[in-house]
Amino acid sequence: MKFCSNCASPVSLSVPPGDHLPRFVCANCGTIHYENPRIIAGCVIEHEGKILLCKRAIEPRHGFWTIPAGFMENGESVQQAAAREAMEEALAHVRIGSLLAVVNVLRAHQVHIMFRATLTQPSFGIGPESLESQLYAEAEIPWPELAFLSVEFALRRYLDDRAKGREQLHFRDIDWRDGKPVMTDGDSQ
Amino acid sequence: MKFCSNCASPVSLSVPPGDHLPRFVCANCGTIHYENPRIIAGCVIEHEGKILLCKRAIEPRHGFWTIPAGFMENGESVQQAAAREAMEEALAHVRIGSLLAVVNVLRAHQVHIMFRATLTQPSFGIGPESLESQLYAEAEIPWPELAFLSVEFALRRYLDDRAKGREQLHFRDIDWRDGKPVMTDGDSQ
Ligand SMILES: [Zn+2]
Ligand SMILES: [Zn+2]
Repeated sequence: MKFCSNCASPVSLSVPPGDHLPRFVCANCGTIHYENPRIIAGCVIEHEGKILLCKRAIEPRHGFWTIPAGFMENGESVQQAAAREAMEEALAHVRIGSLLAVVNVLRAHQVHIMFRATLTQPSFGIGPESLESQLYAEAEIPWPELAFLSVEFALRRYLDDRAKGREQLHFRDIDWRDGKPVMTDGDSQ
Repeated sequence: MKFCSNCASPVSLSVPPGDHLPRFVCANCGTIHYENPRIIAGCVIEHEGKILLCKRAIEPRHGFWTIPAGFMENGESVQQAAAREAMEEALAHVRIGSLLAVVNVLRAHQVHIMFRATLTQPSFGIGPESLESQLYAEAEIPWPELAFLSVEFALRRYLDDRAKGREQLHFRDIDWRDGKPVMTDGDSQ
């Protein structure tokens, strides 16, 4: 951020009175420009025992596989965002179920919120942000070709819970140090 | 938003190619300025059977009671944000427990994420954003003087679960139509 979105004057980083973190502040009009984490909403979609994955047609991670997931928009719920992403990426009508995972992706300033879901119609397709969509049996999931660590986490916990006949909620923090991911799990519930 | 934060040119609302929603777009440098929901992180803190509430010293809802809660910051987890708010508003060291509530506050473009928590030290105080802090027994909670609908929801579900000896996760959407709140609950889990 270089300029004030309210008055077009240059902004500078400083800690506002009563605050404890540096913000982009406009000396001309006084506006404080806060920046906050964004929510990625997604869902693990099961149909006839298989999991629906999409091959990404966009960066980052073009050509890798993911569950439908993307930035939550203003005016929708997290659940609606997850269902919308299923429609956009896989042309899939889904029923959103229980909450599966909350993953803090610290360096990216993101919180990934993933639900369980099922198809409400036995059809799906390839949305504009996908190269392919495919139902994978558990033994066929392309683990080395998954796009994101949070997606691998959600899928592994989903399948582990399914094998145990339960639906738990799982927490993980993903940080990045010296070029390597550092992952810390919270208690499941 | 009136001006581009990257180049100071005026922005205008338009739907970018491949997108489906209007965004603030800069015709000069091409930057698309996305706006997304923000996370409010908070916690219901129990100590010796009582609930810790703070009377707000700031707007909105100055003078009303709330659980510690506030905007999540970049670089922290949702759980860290909830614990930080407990420290800032009530000078309370807390241990964050299970996830209590996820509330979509649609018109405010916010998702309220509230955890259960306990004091790790038997002391608390009055932070700069609070007028008072107080432990309330269940029968003494000032329900008509609570600051936010999401706080009332979290407290009622917390106490109901406690009475039943369980810790569930609860979902609610809060929208606003014709000047009145419209609330829709999801399945608890
Ligand atoms: Zn300004
Ligand atoms: Zn620009």
